[in-house]
Amino acid sequence: MKNPEPVHPDSPFRNLIYEVIFETRTRGGKLFDVVLLWAIVLSVVVVLLESVAGIRTVYGPELNLLEWFFTILFTVEYLFRLYSARSALRYAFSFFGVVDLLAIVPTFISLILPGIHYLVVIRILRVLRIFRILRLTDYSSQAQVIMGALVTSRKKISVFLLGVLTLVVIIGSLMYVIEGEANGFSDIPTSIYWAIVTMTTVGYGDLSPQTPLGKMLAAAVMIIGYAIIAVPTGIVTLEVASAVRDGQRDRVCSACSKAGHDSDAQHCKYCGKKL
Amino acid sequence: MKNPEPVHPDSPFRNLIYEVIFETRTRGGKLFDVVLLWAIVLSVVVVLLESVAGIRTVYGPELNLLEWFFTILFTVEYLFRLYSARSALRYAFSFFGVVDLLAIVPTFISLILPGIHYLVVIRILRVLRIFRILRLTDYSSQAQVIMGALVTSRKKISVFLLGVLTLVVIIGSLMYVIEGEANGFSDIPTSIYWAIVTMTTVGYGDLSPQTPLGKMLAAAVMIIGYAIIAVPTGIVTLEVASAVRDGQRDRVCSACSKAGHDSDAQHCKYCGKKL
Amino acid sequence: MKNPEPVHPDSPFRNLIYEVIFETRTRGGKLFDVVLLWAIVLSVVVVLLESVAGIRTVYGPELNLLEWFFTILFTVEYLFRLYSARSALRYAFSFFGVVDLLAIVPTFISLILPGIHYLVVIRILRVLRIFRILRLTDYSSQAQVIMGALVTSRKKISVFLLGVLTLVVIIGSLMYVIEGEANGFSDIPTSIYWAIVTMTTVGYGDLSPQTPLGKMLAAAVMIIGYAIIAVPTGIVTLEVASAVRDGQRDRVCSACSKAGHDSDAQHCKYCGKKL
Amino acid sequence: MKNPEPVHPDSPFRNLIYEVIFETRTRGGKLFDVVLLWAIVLSVVVVLLESVAGIRTVYGPELNLLEWFFTILFTVEYLFRLYSARSALRYAFSFFGVVDLLAIVPTFISLILPGIHYLVVIRILRVLRIFRILRLTDYSSQAQVIMGALVTSRKKISVFLLGVLTLVVIIGSLMYVIEGEANGFSDIPTSIYWAIVTMTTVGYGDLSPQTPLGKMLAAAVMIIGYAIIAVPTGIVTLEVASAVRDGQRDRVCSACSKAGHDSDAQHCKYCGKKL
Repeated sequence: MKNPEPVHPDSPFRNLIYEVIFETRTRGGKLFDVVLLWAIVLSVVVVLLESVAGIRTVYGPELNLLEWFFTILFTVEYLFRLYSARSALRYAFSFFGVVDLLAIVPTFISLILPGIHYLVVIRILRVLRIFRILRLTDYSSQAQVIMGALVTSRKKISVFLLGVLTLVVIIGSLMYVIEGEANGFSDIPTSIYWAIVTMTTVGYGDLSPQTPLGKMLAAAVMIIGYAIIAVPTGIVTLEVASAVRDGQRDRVCSACSKAGHDSDAQHCKYCGKKL
Repeated sequence: MKNPEPVHPDSPFRNLIYEVIFETRTRGGKLFDVVLLWAIVLSVVVVLLESVAGIRTVYGPELNLLEWFFTILFTVEYLFRLYSARSALRYAFSFFGVVDLLAIVPTFISLILPGIHYLVVIRILRVLRIFRILRLTDYSSQAQVIMGALVTSRKKISVFLLGVLTLVVIIGSLMYVIEGEANGFSDIPTSIYWAIVTMTTVGYGDLSPQTPLGKMLAAAVMIIGYAIIAVPTGIVTLEVASAVRDGQRDRVCSACSKAGHDSDAQHCKYCGKKL
Repeated sequence: MKNPEPVHPDSPFRNLIYEVIFETRTRGGKLFDVVLLWAIVLSVVVVLLESVAGIRTVYGPELNLLEWFFTILFTVEYLFRLYSARSALRYAFSFFGVVDLLAIVPTFISLILPGIHYLVVIRILRVLRIFRILRLTDYSSQAQVIMGALVTSRKKISVFLLGVLTLVVIIGSLMYVIEGEANGFSDIPTSIYWAIVTMTTVGYGDLSPQTPLGKMLAAAVMIIGYAIIAVPTGIVTLEVASAVRDGQRDRVCSACSKAGHDSDAQHCKYCGKKL
Repeated sequence: MKNPEPVHPDSPFRNLIYEVIFETRTRGGKLFDVVLLWAIVLSVVVVLLESVAGIRTVYGPELNLLEWFFTILFTVEYLFRLYSARSALRYAFSFFGVVDLLAIVPTFISLILPGIHYLVVIRILRVLRIFRILRLTDYSSQAQVIMGALVTSRKKISVFLLGVLTLVVIIGSLMYVIEGEANGFSDIPTSIYWAIVTMTTVGYGDLSPQTPLGKMLAAAVMIIGYAIIAVPTGIVTLEVASAVRDGQRDRVCSACSKAGHDSDAQHCKYCGKKL
């Protein structure tokens, strides 16, 4: 499928690049997207492998070369994007414009600043380029349903999280008083960390109550958490159900063209016309 | 927006304080609430930091000073509340009146009673003043939906928890018999604690079965817990759904007396009459 | 409220005992039930405390005395039940008849058999008398909804558990091959135990993969378990919803006296009469 | 019940074997299935027991003999299946044809290749024959509802898992930077493994954050995981509900063409006509 209206009518070359990079429906655009997706996944794998000491000592130079290859590839791509975008400025400050820049900058910074430890820290941040995958995948309507459900239940979940946080501070403080520093609950923040680890049922076991009273409180916290975990599930289930239902209620009134009628409705609920 | 009817018509000063402290719609009242909220959060953070040994040794005096600053601030606020409330007595015995008092008392008690160990215990309880935040936040209708769902499913969840408790006592006793004191299951209360840790899928690992029979029972308990965790979720999901539906579906058609209309419906979906 | 028709018309004493023990609506019956409930809870607490070494050494004789007191109390009650029941035989072989007997027998057996270690084992089983509480509590309609939901989803959950068991055997075997005895996965049953601990998200940490391949498999198992845990929740949620709905659809047809009509039904779905 | 049309009309013996092995409705077929199911379960138990060192040293030869007995039994069965199937080729390449072959091949390979360590690996894979049980069990409509729900929500769950994977790579990298190799987060893949262990609330505790910043990130990850775990549950609940509803609600009234009748409805609930 050809793009009917050229974005850059004065420059056929700039227009071609636009179609390849930004269009996903042309053949060239599709190929470009697939190649880019693989390049991103491979470059992330390179960073992951580089962090493993055993692999770094053997294949360090090769991985470093590959990393530079991908960085230069993504830099060229970024410059082409700036050159061919409808508005270079708007692209540069869009979410993916910033992500595209963050995906190449750390490698260059590691070149200028030769501080070894600091270097390692920044090198790892390049993994954020995995966000670029999001740009390519057809998250489609399924993702929209999930996202829609999460966005709609945003308020309910915020209230819920605030309640959990309040609870967790009080439980953490109580546990600090009961167990004390001798049993590993060295301060209140650590005890709050324990309370979160317990209420979310993660339960590392790096901290666990030793006194009988502490164990009783911990048991109560777990059972409370057991009942509480049902709340976000209930909220999201409902929102997912509601999002799906909204997508299905697509019967349209012939008089006022409005949708959203129940499956058993006999009259349009907006204008009263018989459906 | 001005308060139309003054609460204390005889005393303009007392009325002003009432408007600032208790009213949340006047400009002064809004500012006061925001400042108070930040003061509460900061005072909690001070208590949290004070409990960290490394910070206490360095900034101990400063944190102690800040703590006294916040305590005096909240004391003045508490006295003003008593002075300006519609009924001082009713405020003092209301939920937030008690919380407001509990938020300042422990610091003063720590002054009179110089018992060091005991002091530490009480100092921590001041963190309960985080409850004051609840007074300010607009938990709004979203919180009411959650609370409503939890209150409605109160009975079902009580029955469920009683069933879980019964199960947990029996499983704990069985595990004590099977594993015994040699494997860390030192008594039945400890074994019940283990059963709760396991059934809620927290799994610290401070206690874990060592014998083959114990591992088999533990595996059975986990799988039972796996099926059981679905019950509270199902109950709360249903109640949340029902609470949301009830809020939306109480409009009745005056012509055919049918309910079940969506919140955005303008005509009865059964007979077409205007709602 | 008096029982209109005496169960034992020939023996007023036997009838009185029946009313006190089996009836829960008469004043005497209510009092008896409350006293019995407390006696059961206390006798369970006695057994729990007796198992704690520190308490046993100090209060051992007193707890032993209390235990005998409760045992004799429950024995007298059991005999009265046999004496006053409509049919002694049917009671003796009913669920609660067997539980009542099991709640007193172990103490007597511990008297006849002086084998010390074996004694401890049997003494603990007396905790099963907590089942007697179930007899008294008004689990009412709420419990019936939960039970109904679990019974209706019995088949779906069986199929689900069979699938999980199959998966767990294969994963356990794979893990045994990958990790081997050197990393704690000493045999396939132990590896299956690990797989259950992991899939149910309990995660004790007594066994955890050490090799990179093992960690990859473990991560896959966790994410699979993450998706799978949704299945029983979905099933039970649906059944709870359906059980509640059935309880609500109590509109009765005036012609055929059948219930179960939807809220928007205009005609009886069984006989076609207008509702 | 006799099979009305013989599959192999020319060979009564081949036809008889077909009826016994492939048919589940004839008496012989039923008996064969039950015997085979038990043989499979027993042969799996033999492999499980063989892997336990303590049992292998004592009963090794007997278990080896049993294993060979079952292998030969299943081999004979496999050959009969090939002989009597409608199409031997189609059976051999069907899912269960491959599983049937994989269930017998490893024992024979362990005979030819006397490499001890490798042998152990292959011997365990024989446990895959538990898949044969799947062939026999009447997973029936209940399994179809579950499977249907999982298949329909395939896309939503894929999107969800992709999102979780992206999140987990970024969190793992951040944690590697924060905690570093000194605290056990030896490389990014290990940190990603930690992130999965934490987000799925498994929480082994073999890796746990030691620095305050690491604990803060871990707490945030847990709370995010707490909210996220609700998403697949919501999706599957909805699909299960929809699958059950679809199965019940496909009857249409011949008079008014309305659907949505319950499975036990005898008259249309809208117009009252007999269905």
